[in-house]
Amino acid sequence: VLAFDPGDAGYLRELAEFVAVPSVSRDASQDTMLTAASWLAGQLAFAGGQVAQTDGHPVVRGEWLGADGAPTVLVYGHYDVQPTGDLAEWETPPFELHADGDIVRGRGATDDKGPVYMVLKTAQAFMAQEGGLPLNVKFLFEGEEEIGSPHLPAFVRAHARELAADLVISADGAMWRPTEPSLSLASKGLVSMDITVEGASGDLHSGRYGGTVANPLHALSEILASLHDAGGTVTVDGFYDGIPPLSPERRREIAAVPFDDERYLADLGLAEAHGEAGYSTLERLWERPTLEINGISGGGKYTVIPHAAVANVSCRLVPGQDPDKVIEAITAHVSALAVPGVRAAVHPDEARVPAYTIPAGHPAIRAATAALEAVYPGEQVLLACIAGTLPATDLFERVLGAKTLFFSFSTADEKLHAPNEYLRVRRLREGMRAWEHLWRLLAAGQYRLGPVSAGEGQPGND
Amino acid sequence: VLAFDPGDAGYLRELAEFVAVPSVSRDASQDTMLTAASWLAGQLAFAGGQVAQTDGHPVVRGEWLGADGAPTVLVYGHYDVQPTGDLAEWETPPFELHADGDIVRGRGATDDKGPVYMVLKTAQAFMAQEGGLPLNVKFLFEGEEEIGSPHLPAFVRAHARELAADLVISADGAMWRPTEPSLSLASKGLVSMDITVEGASGDLHSGRYGGTVANPLHALSEILASLHDAGGTVTVDGFYDGIPPLSPERRREIAAVPFDDERYLADLGLAEAHGEAGYSTLERLWERPTLEINGISGGGKYTVIPHAAVANVSCRLVPGQDPDKVIEAITAHVSALAVPGVRAAVHPDEARVPAYTIPAGHPAIRAATAALEAVYPGEQVLLACIAGTLPATDLFERVLGAKTLFFSFSTADEKLHAPNEYLRVRRLREGMRAWEHLWRLLAAGQYRLGPVSAGEGQPGND
Repeated sequence: VLAFDPGDAGYLRELAEFVAVPSVSRDASQDTMLTAASWLAGQLAFAGGQVAQTDGHPVVRGEWLGADGAPTVLVYGHYDVQPTGDLAEWETPPFELHADGDIVRGRGATDDKGPVYMVLKTAQAFMAQEGGLPLNVKFLFEGEEEIGSPHLPAFVRAHARELAADLVISADGAMWRPTEPSLSLASKGLVSMDITVEGASGDLHSGRYGGTVANPLHALSEILASLHDAGGTVTVDGFYDGIPPLSPERRREIAAVPFDDERYLADLGLAEAHGEAGYSTLERLWERPTLEINGISGGGKYTVIPHAAVANVSCRLVPGQDPDKVIEAITAHVSALAVPGVRAAVHPDEARVPAYTIPAGHPAIRAATAALEAVYPGEQVLLACIAGTLPATDLFERVLGAKTLFFSFSTADEKLHAPNEYLRVRRLREGMRAWEHLWRLLAAGQYRLGPVSAGEGQPGND
Repeated sequence: VLAFDPGDAGYLRELAEFVAVPSVSRDASQDTMLTAASWLAGQLAFAGGQVAQTDGHPVVRGEWLGADGAPTVLVYGHYDVQPTGDLAEWETPPFELHADGDIVRGRGATDDKGPVYMVLKTAQAFMAQEGGLPLNVKFLFEGEEEIGSPHLPAFVRAHARELAADLVISADGAMWRPTEPSLSLASKGLVSMDITVEGASGDLHSGRYGGTVANPLHALSEILASLHDAGGTVTVDGFYDGIPPLSPERRREIAAVPFDDERYLADLGLAEAHGEAGYSTLERLWERPTLEINGISGGGKYTVIPHAAVANVSCRLVPGQDPDKVIEAITAHVSALAVPGVRAAVHPDEARVPAYTIPAGHPAIRAATAALEAVYPGEQVLLACIAGTLPATDLFERVLGAKTLFFSFSTADEKLHAPNEYLRVRRLREGMRAWEHLWRLLAAGQYRLGPVSAGEGQPGND
C-alpha cells in the first residue's frame, strides 16, 4: 500500500498553484492556457510529459509503458475550467484556492483540476515508492472540455495509434452525491445553440416608437415559452424521437435507489421539483433528455426597444437521440412559430455530443466497484448515471475502440460551473487510494480488459 | 431680429464642452453631475445662475425679471443623459461631439443638451444685443429627467413661490419627425418595474440538475409571453381601464396627417408594423398605451440553470390611466400566473408619471404655432403627440398651476436613448430663431397667458 505524502496541506498548496491559473477555455489567452498545460506537463515528468499543439488549446500527453504484459489504460482529464460567472457571488476569489473547514473553494477545484491532481499524485507515489506503475498508463489531458472539445477529435484521430489502450479511465465525471460511493454507467449527450431575434436596424426609444413595431424581447419570450408546456415537458415536435421506453426493470432499479426528493429540494432551497410529466425526479435526471435556457440577454433597465435579443440554449441528450436531429427539430419549431415583425433564427454550436453508456457487467465497472469497496469498506457502490456530458467518451469509443470508465472523486453537489465551486478535502486521499486500488486490480489480471467487441458499441470509426 | 454669432462652428465647439461631461444620471458620480450643472450655471450668469442642491442630483436655476408688466415664463430642461448602451455600437465616442455631414453625434446632443443650449444662446443674444429679454424668464434645469425626476417634486414644492410662472416652456420633448414643424398636445405617462424570478439558492449545473427543477429563465419567458397576445395587444386584465374611447373626430384628424407606414418601417429596417389590434400605427403611437420589455438578463452562454432572472419592464400611459392601478394590474397578473417551482415578483420603480395634455386652443399653442410659421414659412404646423414621457409636466400643473408648452428642436428620429444619438445642425439656428419669435410674441401680449383655470386641468396641488 502506498504512503501518500506530504499530507493534505502540502497537497493543497500544490493544487492551489494549478487552480491559480485562470484557464477558462471560453475566454483565456493562449498564454494562460499554455501556462496551465505546462504545469501539468511538469507533473508528468516521470512519463515524459509534453504539451502538444492542436488547432485550439493544447493537450498534455505522457506515457509510462514499463509494465510488460500488463494492460494499458489511457487516463483522461481536462485542465480548462468554466467562466467564473458573477464575481460578486464568490465568497473568495475564484482563482485562489481557499480552505474553508472540510472543503477547498476555487474555480476548477472539483471540475476538473482536483480530480486530475489525484491521479498525478497516485502515479508519482507509485514511481517514488515502487519504482514503476503496476500497469501501462498513457495520459491525455485536454484544455477544451468546457467548450465541447472542438479540437480533440482531430487530435485523437491523428494520434490513434499512440493513444491506443484497453480502457480509458476518465478523471472527469462526478460521483452523484456525497453520501455513498458510486460509479456511472452513462453520461448524457449535449447540443447547444443560440436563438436570436432581430427587429429594427438599431435600438429604439420605447416612447417614441413603442406600440408601432415588434419588440425582439417579446418575440424571444414567446419563442422560449413555447419550448415547454407548463409542467416542463419539451413541446418541440421530434425532440424525444428515438428514445427507447424506460423499461420496468430500470424503473424498479431507480426506485430502489435511496433518494429523498424533499431533502434534494431542501438542499437547493426549493419547495417543489419540476420537469417532464410521468417520470420521477431521479428518472428525469438519469434517463430523460432536457432542453434548458442557460441565458437570455437583450436591452437593459432603460426605456429602450432593443434591436436584438439572444437566448443561449442547451439540450442534454439520452441514448437513442441523434444530436443533429434534435437541432433540426428545434430549428423547425422556431421557424414554424413565425413570430411576426421580427427575424428569428437558430444558430447551433459546432459540438454535438451523443449520449454515452458502458454496460454494468463491463470488467472495468467490476474492477472499479472492488476498488471503491476497498476505500469505502461496508458501503454499497451505487450504479448511477452522469446527467452531465463528457464529449470525449464517444470519441474514444469510435476512434480507439475503448470504453471509458468514469473514475472521478468530484461530487455533483460541489457547485460545478457555478460560483463558489469547491472540493471536499477528504476526497483527495480517498481518490488517490482508489486509483491505487484500481490500477493494482486491473494489473492483477482478474478483470480481463480488451477492446470493445464489434457490435457492442457505436459502429466503427466515424 | 437678433443676429446669432459666432456661427455654427463656434456653437458646436461650445456645445461639445457640455456633451463632454458624461452626466449619465443613472450611473455618474456626484462630481460629474456637478460639473455639468456648474457649466449650465455659468451659461446663466446673466440671470444669476446657481446650482441648487436636492436630495439627488442638483438642479440649476436662474431668473431675469426685468420686463415689467410682461408675462413670466419658466424654461425647463435637463442636463442629465441616458447611459450609452453598448459602446461597440457607437460610430464615434459618445461623449465627444462629432460633426458628420449635417449632423452632430454624441450622447445628449439631442436629448437634451442641444435643445437646452439653444435657449441659452437665444437669451444671451437678447441680453447682448437688446440689453434685456422681452419677457420675464425663470430657468430650471434638472439632472434626473432620465431616471424619472425622483427629487424634482420636493424641490418644486419647496420653491413654488420663486418658480411661479404664467407658462412653463419645456426645451425637452422632440418634434415627431424632420419633414415638418410640429407641436405636441400630449405626452405619455410612465411606470416601470422589474419582474424577477428566483429558483434555487445558487446557480446549478444544467447537466447535474437539469430536468429536476424549474428553470427561472423558462418561468420568466412564460410570464413575459403572457403579457401580450400574438398581435401585440396587452393581455393584462385592467391595463386599458379608464381610457376614453378614441373619438371619430380624433381618428379623422390622425388619418389626415401625412404618414407613410411603409416609409416609417423602411427607415427602421423593418418589413411590418406590430401592435395593438384595431388601431393604425399613428393611433397606437399617439393615443394608446404600451407595455414594453426593455431588458432581460439571467445566466449566460454556459451550461447553467441560473438561480435568478430579471426583466425590466416599462409602460407608456395615456390620459385616463392611473399609474398605480397599472402597476397593481401587472402585479395581479403575475401573481395569478403562479408559475410552478419558482418565486416570481414585481418590483415597481418609485416614479409614476401620469399622461399629460395641453388643449389645442391654449394661447401658448397658438403663439408657438405662429413662431414656428415664422421660422418655417409656408409649412403647416402639425399638432402631434409625444409618445415619450416628461415627468415634470404633471408636477408643474399640480404645484405651479401652469401648463407646459413643449418647445424642443430635437427630432424623434435622432436616436434618443440609443447608440449614435445625434442632432441635426440646422436645428440649432432654427431653434434659436423660434425661441426669439416665441418670446417676442408672448411679450407682445396678443396671446394672453394666465394660470390654468379651475377645472381645466388636474385638481389643485397634490
